Amino acid sequence: MSKPGLPQGTRDFSATVVQRRQYIFQTIRRVFETYGFQPLETPAMENLETLMGKYGEEGDQLIFKILNNGLANPDKADRSRAALENVLAGKSSKDLTERALRYDLTIPFARYVAMNHGQLTFPFKRYQVQPVWRADRPQKGRYREFYQCDADIVGSSSLQNETELVLLYAAVFQALQLPITLKLNNRKVLAALAQTCGGPEWMVPISVAIDKLDKIGWEKVAAELENKGLPAAAIEKIKTYLSISGNNAQKATAMRALLGSEAQAETGLAELETILAQAQPFWGNTTVELDFTLARGLNYYTGTIFEVKAQGVQMGSIGGGGRYDDLTGLFGVPNLPGVGISFGVDRIYDVMEELALFPTTLAETTQLLFFHLGQKEAAEAFRWMQTLRAAGIATELFHEQQKFDKQFRYAEKKQIPFVAILGSDELAAGKIVLKNLSQGSQSNMGLEDLLLFFQQRAENPSR
Amino acid sequence: MSKPGLPQGTRDFSATVVQRRQYIFQTIRRVFETYGFQPLETPAMENLETLMGKYGEEGDQLIFKILNNGLANPDKADRSRAALENVLAGKSSKDLTERALRYDLTIPFARYVAMNHGQLTFPFKRYQVQPVWRADRPQKGRYREFYQCDADIVGSSSLQNETELVLLYAAVFQALQLPITLKLNNRKVLAALAQTCGGPEWMVPISVAIDKLDKIGWEKVAAELENKGLPAAAIEKIKTYLSISGNNAQKATAMRALLGSEAQAETGLAELETILAQAQPFWGNTTVELDFTLARGLNYYTGTIFEVKAQGVQMGSIGGGGRYDDLTGLFGVPNLPGVGISFGVDRIYDVMEELALFPTTLAETTQLLFFHLGQKEAAEAFRWMQTLRAAGIATELFHEQQKFDKQFRYAEKKQIPFVAILGSDELAAGKIVLKNLSQGSQSNMGLEDLLLFFQQRAENPSR
Repeated sequence: MSKPGLPQGTRDFSATVVQRRQYIFQTIRRVFETYGFQPLETPAMENLETLMGKYGEEGDQLIFKILNNGLANPDKADRSRAALENVLAGKSSKDLTERALRYDLTIPFARYVAMNHGQLTFPFKRYQVQPVWRADRPQKGRYREFYQCDADIVGSSSLQNETELVLLYAAVFQALQLPITLKLNNRKVLAALAQTCGGPEWMVPISVAIDKLDKIGWEKVAAELENKGLPAAAIEKIKTYLSISGNNAQKATAMRALLGSEAQAETGLAELETILAQAQPFWGNTTVELDFTLARGLNYYTGTIFEVKAQGVQMGSIGGGGRYDDLTGLFGVPNLPGVGISFGVDRIYDVMEELALFPTTLAETTQLLFFHLGQKEAAEAFRWMQTLRAAGIATELFHEQQKFDKQFRYAEKKQIPFVAILGSDELAAGKIVLKNLSQGSQSNMGLEDLLLFFQQRAENPSR
Repeated sequence: MSKPGLPQGTRDFSATVVQRRQYIFQTIRRVFETYGFQPLETPAMENLETLMGKYGEEGDQLIFKILNNGLANPDKADRSRAALENVLAGKSSKDLTERALRYDLTIPFARYVAMNHGQLTFPFKRYQVQPVWRADRPQKGRYREFYQCDADIVGSSSLQNETELVLLYAAVFQALQLPITLKLNNRKVLAALAQTCGGPEWMVPISVAIDKLDKIGWEKVAAELENKGLPAAAIEKIKTYLSISGNNAQKATAMRALLGSEAQAETGLAELETILAQAQPFWGNTTVELDFTLARGLNYYTGTIFEVKAQGVQMGSIGGGGRYDDLTGLFGVPNLPGVGISFGVDRIYDVMEELALFPTTLAETTQLLFFHLGQKEAAEAFRWMQTLRAAGIATELFHEQQKFDKQFRYAEKKQIPFVAILGSDELAAGKIVLKNLSQGSQSNMGLEDLLLFFQQRAENPSR
């Protein structure tokens, strides 16, 4: 007999949490499909070689590897020992492990597209909502199992795809009634900055430093760049770059004044302006702004980059993405550019909880509990209950005859809003007593009226 | 650059398959909720000690274990080597692995109930739809990652719970339009048989042998029992037991004649008759039959047992379950009886495909494709498109201006049923040309009419 527990960094989700998470997932899925994206699901396990080397050294170490089965077979003892020595020497070893849990949804997606590119319809618009696993040190808000929620369009360089993703972000967060600021930048503008600071080799150090601006402030960013050997004049240029402010048009004008002589900057700005012009008529009350301090440091983006922040709460980004030149080159299929975005579901959940944005009716699953008042009464209650259930109305009959207060307590604890009394009097009269537990009111009702009552309530949950 | 592949026994699910699987899952979930069951989700990983020793020796070997991270740390080399030697010696070792992927949903559920029993409302009715992993030898129809779909009621011995599960099975398969035979038996009847054959120690051998009746036939079953030392008279009794036939009432009468003197048999039969009497008025056209050859051999069931077979196809059971006395005793919380059922989603999928039961409209996601006929036209198409999308109608605009036939081919390959032409003439007239690709017909339409057309089509997909 063992005392049960959960692995560090993992969670059980009980009913209320599952329902709230499903509300987020279903909202996102519905919008994805409205925009023509099709679902994909890939297995939790991938071949280790599919994943290794794709996430940098730090990422590789956070991949959960699966022990080969049959390892304890004495016939294989020597192979198993040799395999361990390989692992200790920092080499991968197929004898010990050849499978691992997926670390994100992008590499499995790239693997899928590379394996199936002959059969797919391009531009291929897929969405994927599945858990990923990372052996990160568990901490508040960071888990070892968490969901990712991605949409990508591959096989097209058209900026219309970026416009679609801007509108998709706006539509999802409007549906969730969560006010956001959507920030846009373009890596070509950052490349132009790096160019004027000394050349393309400065792109990564500058992006990485800028990424930290929010957290550590300008002084430390400047010190970091100085340490790396960036000349003072270049650092001054970056300071000017970062201080650009105003509305979107003002920012673009200022950026042209600063970097307009670099062809890359002009290309990046023109792309951003096209996207804004296409999307603006349709993004409603969503705040969409150019933010040249957005860098999304250590990734493979080459064009537009996106980031979503929730308004009115202290929270990191709740979404992000960007354009890349080559999804599947690593898997032998070159020249597939694309653009994708991701939703940070765990953070969206936390923000919605903080702002009390979940519909209260999500907690109400069962609408009506029939009290159990004896076998004969229960048999009749079954008849009523099955009629309601057949109409999609969640209904229960208490599992056995017990005292009223026990049956009431069950309804209260399960947040069931109505109970039905069907005793011998009601059996004779053909009408039940319906009690509204929150209002304390009650009324007699026949089956047809009861059905109608709950059907109307389903259409208008505030009743 | 590696040639990408999938781990043995795992699958990618592309859009059509995901949509069909979701159709099954959503149908089951909806019925679960209509019956008052609440969702639970547990993590993919459990502590190894939670799982080990719960599935028999064979099961334990099929558990996917996760390699501890940091194993390659040279500081830990000696510990890692010692850990491997422990594993080779057949002992488990926390230094090598202390986590594993869940093998089923029952043990994680028991672990959850044991951890949270003070907070739960009993009877606790939970459902769970999640993947499980088993290192089985992959073969046709058997995978290393597959979904389970369980509903359990714990904390109640009332037979009403069994009645509910009979009706739940009937409701799900009626909703899927999949004709089934639901078979019922009671382990108490089998226990009575074992008693008359020599004692309780014969319960497992007899159950295991009977379980194989369908596959290997009576002669081999008899030979197996003879080998195990069962006397000829007992084998003859089992033969009579297995030959009981007729309708449910006739079977019960015959069973009373055979085993009625055993108190357990009478209890089991009375339970089955109560369930049948309660459920019969509501199970509609579902075939529900007593089947005393049903044994569900190697498990912990103690009362009613269930099994579902699809009618009209060759296929093993597509569902099963039963009553157990003690869910959580292994985790230190005794006296929690319950009853549960499971849906075999992969097999249900195969049967529904064979019988062509999936609604054809599942494949249609995007309803309408606007052709891209130039930037000005595309800007106007966006306006139409966003109006349709806001009304929940999945709509796309081709990603760039290309030849008609390329745009047509995209619509065909994605099974988009309608395309909209919005060229310069249409721009001037304020009406698009709507083409129905399957019928080859076309008509001019303004935005309001177009919206109405698709709203009506959504309500009545056969149009």
